[in-house]
Amino acid sequence: MNNVPPLDAFAVNLEIIGRVHTTVPDDDIARTRRELVSHIVVAPRFAEALTGIEAYSQIIVLFWLDRARPSEGWLTHPRGNPDLPLTGVLAGRGRAHPNPVGLAVVDLIARHGNTLEVRRLDAFNGTPVIDIKPYDHFDVYPDPRVPAWFRARLPAPQAT
Amino acid sequence: MNNVPPLDAFAVNLEIIGRVHTTVPDDDIARTRRELVSHIVVAPRFAEALTGIEAYSQIIVLFWLDRARPSEGWLTHPRGNPDLPLTGVLAGRGRAHPNPVGLAVVDLIARHGNTLEVRRLDAFNGTPVIDIKPYDHFDVYPDPRVPAWFRARLPAPQAT
Repeated sequence: MNNVPPLDAFAVNLEIIGRVHTTVPDDDIARTRRELVSHIVVAPRFAEALTGIEAYSQIIVLFWLDRARPSEGWLTHPRGNPDLPLTGVLAGRGRAHPNPVGLAVVDLIARHGNTLEVRRLDAFNGTPVIDIKPYDHFDVYPDPRVPAWFRARLPAPQAT
Repeated sequence: MNNVPPLDAFAVNLEIIGRVHTTVPDDDIARTRRELVSHIVVAPRFAEALTGIEAYSQIIVLFWLDRARPSEGWLTHPRGNPDLPLTGVLAGRGRAHPNPVGLAVVDLIARHGNTLEVRRLDAFNGTPVIDIKPYDHFDVYPDPRVPAWFRARLPAPQAT
């Protein structure tokens, strides 16, 4: 191992690239996610940075979970289900990570100027978007290994 | 569209979850990426948050590009190649995004306590890791649409 700096925290200014717009109430986002169509309205100062993004069918959206509550510990039952094994938050896709950054791979339906129409973005209305990246073949691992409890709950069309 | 707050910037403290350890020099990381094995040493205070992560074959690593230079504009030629069309930085996977957050889907080879051994992490030695998420079937879109110039340069084994 090499010499590396310490493991504390650091202060940064995050640019708000844009915000999520949806009429779906916060409490209904997770349940409706799979067919949910939202819009990301990108700040005009970053509109040029979208040039060419419409050539991609999917994008990765990073967003700031501004309504996440601080975690009371680093172990949770996945999906809040006490029948599932206690799991570290970094081994799950819940909201209670040390840094509240959300990540979703979404369908890019269309770009209208500085607005992106997307499907499957599980973010609340008004959520700040902090990064957008195109999804490409290097992000594809066709059949990842996952825990048994996760695989057992996969809907059939997603398992292929 | 709903009423949403303004599109400026905001100050946050980011926790350093861990740091990347590699003996490969910065200038060789991109070239060697596909077979590169690195270690992520997670801060002891977050070690418990890794519980169960070894059940996944891939993880998504978010890291802070602490050596990225500020962009001089939002349009670039992909891979610095002037033969490729000018593209917005948010439509590319380069380092000059408005927020310097790197993202890599990597193979999780093994967990040794609070150290994760990974393959394909294109991050320099000492890079702060700000989030780790397990990769699962909802992240898989087997044949994404990408620009023609990208597809033409895909190595054959990645195209399937």
